[in-house]
Amino acid sequence: MYPATSPLLTDLYQLNMLQAYLDHGQMETAVFEFFVRRLPGRRHFLMAAGLEQALDFLENLKFSNEEIDWLRHSKRFSNGFVDYLARLRFTGDVDAMPEGTVFFENEPIIRVIAPLPQAQLVESRLINILHFQSLIASKAARMVLVAPRKQLVDFGLRRAHGAEAGLMAARASYLAGFAGTATVLAQKEFGIPIFGTMAHSFIQAHDDETSAFSAFAHSRPDHLVLLIDTYDTEAAARKVVRLAPRLKEAGIIVRAVRLDSGDLIMLSKHVRRILDDGGLQDVTIFASGGLDEDELAGMMDANAPIDGFGVGTSLTTSSDVPALDCAYKLQEYAGIARRKRSAGKATWPGRKQVWRSFGNDGRMAGDVLSLQDDRHTGEALLIPVMRNGQRLGAPPTLDDIRNKAARGLAQLPEPLRRLDEEAARFPVIVAAGLIALAEQVDRRTAAHDVAD
Amino acid sequence: MYPATSPLLTDLYQLNMLQAYLDHGQMETAVFEFFVRRLPGRRHFLMAAGLEQALDFLENLKFSNEEIDWLRHSKRFSNGFVDYLARLRFTGDVDAMPEGTVFFENEPIIRVIAPLPQAQLVESRLINILHFQSLIASKAARMVLVAPRKQLVDFGLRRAHGAEAGLMAARASYLAGFAGTATVLAQKEFGIPIFGTMAHSFIQAHDDETSAFSAFAHSRPDHLVLLIDTYDTEAAARKVVRLAPRLKEAGIIVRAVRLDSGDLIMLSKHVRRILDDGGLQDVTIFASGGLDEDELAGMMDANAPIDGFGVGTSLTTSSDVPALDCAYKLQEYAGIARRKRSAGKATWPGRKQVWRSFGNDGRMAGDVLSLQDDRHTGEALLIPVMRNGQRLGAPPTLDDIRNKAARGLAQLPEPLRRLDEEAARFPVIVAAGLIALAEQVDRRTAAHDVAD
Repeated sequence: MYPATSPLLTDLYQLNMLQAYLDHGQMETAVFEFFVRRLPGRRHFLMAAGLEQALDFLENLKFSNEEIDWLRHSKRFSNGFVDYLARLRFTGDVDAMPEGTVFFENEPIIRVIAPLPQAQLVESRLINILHFQSLIASKAARMVLVAPRKQLVDFGLRRAHGAEAGLMAARASYLAGFAGTATVLAQKEFGIPIFGTMAHSFIQAHDDETSAFSAFAHSRPDHLVLLIDTYDTEAAARKVVRLAPRLKEAGIIVRAVRLDSGDLIMLSKHVRRILDDGGLQDVTIFASGGLDEDELAGMMDANAPIDGFGVGTSLTTSSDVPALDCAYKLQEYAGIARRKRSAGKATWPGRKQVWRSFGNDGRMAGDVLSLQDDRHTGEALLIPVMRNGQRLGAPPTLDDIRNKAARGLAQLPEPLRRLDEEAARFPVIVAAGLIALAEQVDRRTAAHDVAD
Repeated sequence: MYPATSPLLTDLYQLNMLQAYLDHGQMETAVFEFFVRRLPGRRHFLMAAGLEQALDFLENLKFSNEEIDWLRHSKRFSNGFVDYLARLRFTGDVDAMPEGTVFFENEPIIRVIAPLPQAQLVESRLINILHFQSLIASKAARMVLVAPRKQLVDFGLRRAHGAEAGLMAARASYLAGFAGTATVLAQKEFGIPIFGTMAHSFIQAHDDETSAFSAFAHSRPDHLVLLIDTYDTEAAARKVVRLAPRLKEAGIIVRAVRLDSGDLIMLSKHVRRILDDGGLQDVTIFASGGLDEDELAGMMDANAPIDGFGVGTSLTTSSDVPALDCAYKLQEYAGIARRKRSAGKATWPGRKQVWRSFGNDGRMAGDVLSLQDDRHTGEALLIPVMRNGQRLGAPPTLDDIRNKAARGLAQLPEPLRRLDEEAARFPVIVAAGLIALAEQVDRRTAAHDVAD
């Protein structure tokens, strides 16, 4: 099953805490929110993704009989607690930003309201799911912004951090605006368009390039793409020009060539010239090989005649920012707002809402982070998605999410669309009511500290 | 099943190439090797890991009926080819460096010899498995080297790139010398020791810290660790001093306190003083919170009185180097050596062996990369592990692998043990016979290029 659903995908301290909560009857309602504390220098906005998998995880939360037996035999926990785990299901409520929503620091993208043990147990895996897809969607969005109207394809399964990362990166980049992926399973599981031609090994396994091109063309005549950089890129482009008329006689059209190494700007210009001079004006050029958004921007600036890009490692590992500073924090327990005050890690207490305003040009103008029951102008970004452990309505399709993401990117203020680190920060205003609550929580905790 | 085994965890171009190989009867024996092209600046050595999962994947390679039906209904491939895939199993041979082996650039850590379609199909997932675990073992080894005799624990599930990444990072860091992990499933699947105490939310869910400590202690009395940085670390340490005698009356011993934020060097010294003055000399200090090997080195240099470290995101994402420049390349087909010559990506052709020499001090002195049939002095690092699709002998235990890794780290020359980027490079000599073969392959390909 993709992705994995075992509740043992958790940190041991969660089970330790649950045992203590059960022993002491601490089963009151807890409110947790997941948010990013700070945006990294190279991210001026983030994009929410992974909610569908997070809700799948919650809706199906259940220890298997085998897992329960293993826990019991570990003798780490009381029998009563293991019995409790065997019966445990997620019965809580979830509000969230829909996938594809642009978000900023301190803005919760999901809120979980449930009896404390349930809300606590799911922390590790919920973060694991939401962090990764949001990380990749945010990275992919940068590429989509610098190379609009180019066909972007995820090539990064092999260096993604495991199978689930490869699969979920295909999903996250597609929803952010990529055209598709090379990962076959992503089509089967999510219906994402897949792309692929041949590897260098195919060329190497033949005695010469033309034989390799011809053999491939006859086996894979639909949307034929030939890889031309195994030995000498320009020589190979000339071979394609010589081969194309013979293939055409057999009813096979060369659609594109792929470059995977060397100076892609220079090579693409030379190859374009060779193809055009050879009457192959309709053959497009696709490039790959260690690309990231900075290289895409360089090729766009140089007007490299490249029609599409395969992006691998930099996308699926978010190589410049391989993790976000995010947290899933207790904001309220038993009706009382809570707050962590640890150095550098203080959080805003209570149940919150994010309100987004737009300018006359339709671009985002600013967000307000408020208490949920406060009313502010603008669009409320967190909406109900689960009640009593059940999803509300059918999930959006991946294409719905993709459309939402595209609208969000179109609404970004101009400075936030740029790659450079000096871009203006988006204003997120913390509402007065929230500041007042934080001060009130601090006074209460300080009073307990003295009495403690 | 962990990890995932679907053969659709592959790039589309693999299936495209396989269809063409089948159409043209290209089923001869192919030899592929997996290696890292260049070591990143912050890695002076790498550690091989993931072989067991790679062999599991090969031994169990099989399309499910559901996958075959899906492929057939996609109409992307010929029926004959889909029938071929339904019957496909891995019947090849594998030689490899055992897990835990230290390795360097251009050194193959695995060689696959099989009919071309089999060896090609598995490329994406083999790289995906071997790259990630080797990446994490190599990162973990740096931490083990800078903090010897400290208890290092993987805390990184939540920000690992998916469930499989979290689970495999626990395995890779354990084999490299970590004491264990917080990830519960890693104990169930791999028998790795697990560690865990409480989160800040536990403290926040109580009205005061002392009540939280007391409730936790009574529920989880074994190896009791208390988290003391939720509000004021030093004040909390004094609360532990006041609480400890009362717990002792109930037969409960406080074993450790954990710090998770702030200036860990200063705080650990102050907390050590508070605990010692309070008669708690046996209570150890455990630290966590955004640590990496540079911060570990800083704390070691400052003689911070910390006994163990929880390391999360920097470990499980290998955050400074989230991917290695690695490749799985065709080195021979139908008995003829092959080589890719693409700009900046040329590879050494043929079946290879790595020979490691040691100095009189027992430290590694240099490696020779040669053709497999060449004989050189030193230890031959690649050994047979699979023949005709079947593993040779029982797999080593994780503790065997851990011991091998520890021996390898002890044998590292001193400059390679340091974190800094200027450390001397380890000498890897390319043997004359291999250079001669590469030249011969280039002459043959050039001749074909002219004739082509």
